[in-house]
Amino acid sequence: MIPAPEFRVYLNDLPTNDFNSIFKSLPDFYRDLNKERSGGLPLLFIAGYPGSFYGRLFPNDCLHFVHSSYSLHWLSKVPPSLYDKQGKPINRGSVHISASSPPLVSQAYYAQFQEDFSLFLRSRSDELTAGGRMVLIMLGRIGPDHVDRGNSFYWELLSRSLAILATQGEIKREDIDSYDVHFYAPTKDEMEAEIRREGSFEVERLEMFETEKELYKVSENYGTEVAMTVRAIQESMLSHHFGEGILDTLFEIYGRMVEEEMLKEEINPITFVLVLRKL
Amino acid sequence: MIPAPEFRVYLNDLPTNDFNSIFKSLPDFYRDLNKERSGGLPLLFIAGYPGSFYGRLFPNDCLHFVHSSYSLHWLSKVPPSLYDKQGKPINRGSVHISASSPPLVSQAYYAQFQEDFSLFLRSRSDELTAGGRMVLIMLGRIGPDHVDRGNSFYWELLSRSLAILATQGEIKREDIDSYDVHFYAPTKDEMEAEIRREGSFEVERLEMFETEKELYKVSENYGTEVAMTVRAIQESMLSHHFGEGILDTLFEIYGRMVEEEMLKEEINPITFVLVLRKL
Repeated sequence: MIPAPEFRVYLNDLPTNDFNSIFKSLPDFYRDLNKERSGGLPLLFIAGYPGSFYGRLFPNDCLHFVHSSYSLHWLSKVPPSLYDKQGKPINRGSVHISASSPPLVSQAYYAQFQEDFSLFLRSRSDELTAGGRMVLIMLGRIGPDHVDRGNSFYWELLSRSLAILATQGEIKREDIDSYDVHFYAPTKDEMEAEIRREGSFEVERLEMFETEKELYKVSENYGTEVAMTVRAIQESMLSHHFGEGILDTLFEIYGRMVEEEMLKEEINPITFVLVLRKL
Repeated sequence: MIPAPEFRVYLNDLPTNDFNSIFKSLPDFYRDLNKERSGGLPLLFIAGYPGSFYGRLFPNDCLHFVHSSYSLHWLSKVPPSLYDKQGKPINRGSVHISASSPPLVSQAYYAQFQEDFSLFLRSRSDELTAGGRMVLIMLGRIGPDHVDRGNSFYWELLSRSLAILATQGEIKREDIDSYDVHFYAPTKDEMEAEIRREGSFEVERLEMFETEKELYKVSENYGTEVAMTVRAIQESMLSHHFGEGILDTLFEIYGRMVEEEMLKEEINPITFVLVLRKL
C-alpha cells in the first residue's frame, strides 16, 4: 500500500504580526478538513515561520511551492539614501508620499526595490527544490511613468486625507512630511529585469489584472470598503507615527474621498501575477 | 567543502497559548546567535507547530530529537468516567483535588494517563527517525501510594487556599467541588509499563530528582516564588472556573501557606527525567 501523501504548510509573516489568531483557528480548520475526507489520517501539518522574507526562512532545498500574496510591494525599509547622517529626511523637493515624486525619491525607491526583490529571489531559490514553483501576487504599475493612476492614486488620497487633518489642527504638517512608507509598485519590466539578473528562475507566466473594477460595480459602499481594507493594512504604521486617535476620522475622510473620486473616473490599481520556475 | 549543518527547531504548544511573545523575541535571539558565531549563514530555523502533543504534530520520520519539558503530567482531559451522562460530576466520595483521592478517582486518572501517555509515545514514534531520542521531563510520584507528599502537596495547598476563599464567601463551595484538574503524576513503574506496552522505545536512562530542595535554601521569598510559578501555570484554568477576581487573594494565601508548611517539614516534588531511544 502506498502511504498517503503528507503536506507541510509553512505560514510566514513578520515576527511582530499576530500568529495567535491564525493558530487558534487551526483546530476547527483541521476538523472541517477531516470531515470532508470522511476520517483518515492527518495529512496536513501547518507551522508558523516568523521572519522577514527578505532573507532566509527555511533550510536548503526543502520547498516545492511558494505562494506570496500582496506582500512584495512592501520593501524591507524606506530607502536609507532619503535621510542624512543624522537620520533626518533630506530635502526631497516635495512630499514624497504623493504620486508625483521627484526623480531623486523615485530612484531611491527603485534601488531599494531592486535590492529587496533580488534578495527575495535568491533566498527562495536556495530554499526551493529544482523545478519548484513560486506564485507571486503583487501590486504594480502599468508603465515606467511614476505618476500613472492606479496604486499611487490610493496613496495620493491618503496624503490628501492627512492634509485635511493638518488644516483642522489634528496633526502637524511636519508629521506628514516625515511619514515615509516602504512601498514600491514595480512595472513588468522592472520585475523581469531583476528576475533575469538574479538568474535562478524562469518566468512561466506574467499577467496583469485590474482587480477593483468589478468590485466597484457590485458594491454599495465602495469607499468605506476600500477605507477599511487600507486601514487594516496601514493602521499599525499610521498609529505608530500619528497616534491612534486620528484613525477613525482619517479613514472616514479617506472613504468619502475614494467614493467621490470613483464617480469622476474609474481608478484601477494594477495587480501582477507571476509564475516562476526554479531552474 | 562540506556545507554547514542546518538545524530545524519546532516549538509546540496548544493552539490557544501565546506564540506571539516567543516569535517577537526571535529576531534578538537570532542576532545574538549570529554574534557568537561571528557572522556566517543562518543555520537555525525556528517554527511554531500549534497542536496537542496527544496526537500527530509532524510528518513521518522527520524528527531526530524530541524534548518535552514539564508537560506530560498534564493529561488530555479530566477522565470522562468521572461524569455522568448529563456531564455532572459523579459522587466521588471526597474532594478529588486533594491528595487523598478515593480509589475510584485515582483509577480513573491512572487509566487516562495510560491512554494519553501511550498515544504520545505512538505519535512521537511515527515522527522520529530510527535511533532518534526523546528526553522527557515530568512530575511524578515516588511510590504507588497516591497520598505521598511531593507534587500532591501543592494541590493540597491549592485546595486549602480555595477553601479559605469559600469560608470568606469569595467563592462557592460547589465551585471547588466541580473544579477538576487534568493532572496526573505517575510513578516510575507506571511510566515504564506504558513504554513497554507501546513497544517502540527503549529506556536508556530514567532518573529522579527532588528539584526544589536547593531552591528553598537559597531563596528569601520561597512561598511567593512558588505561588508565582503555580499561578503562571494555572491562572488560565482557575480564572476560567472561578473568575479572574480571586487570583490575587488566592495566591497571596497560597504563598503564605507554602512558606508556613516549608518551616514544618521539607516538601520535595519529584521530577523524572527519561531518555528514550526509538528502536
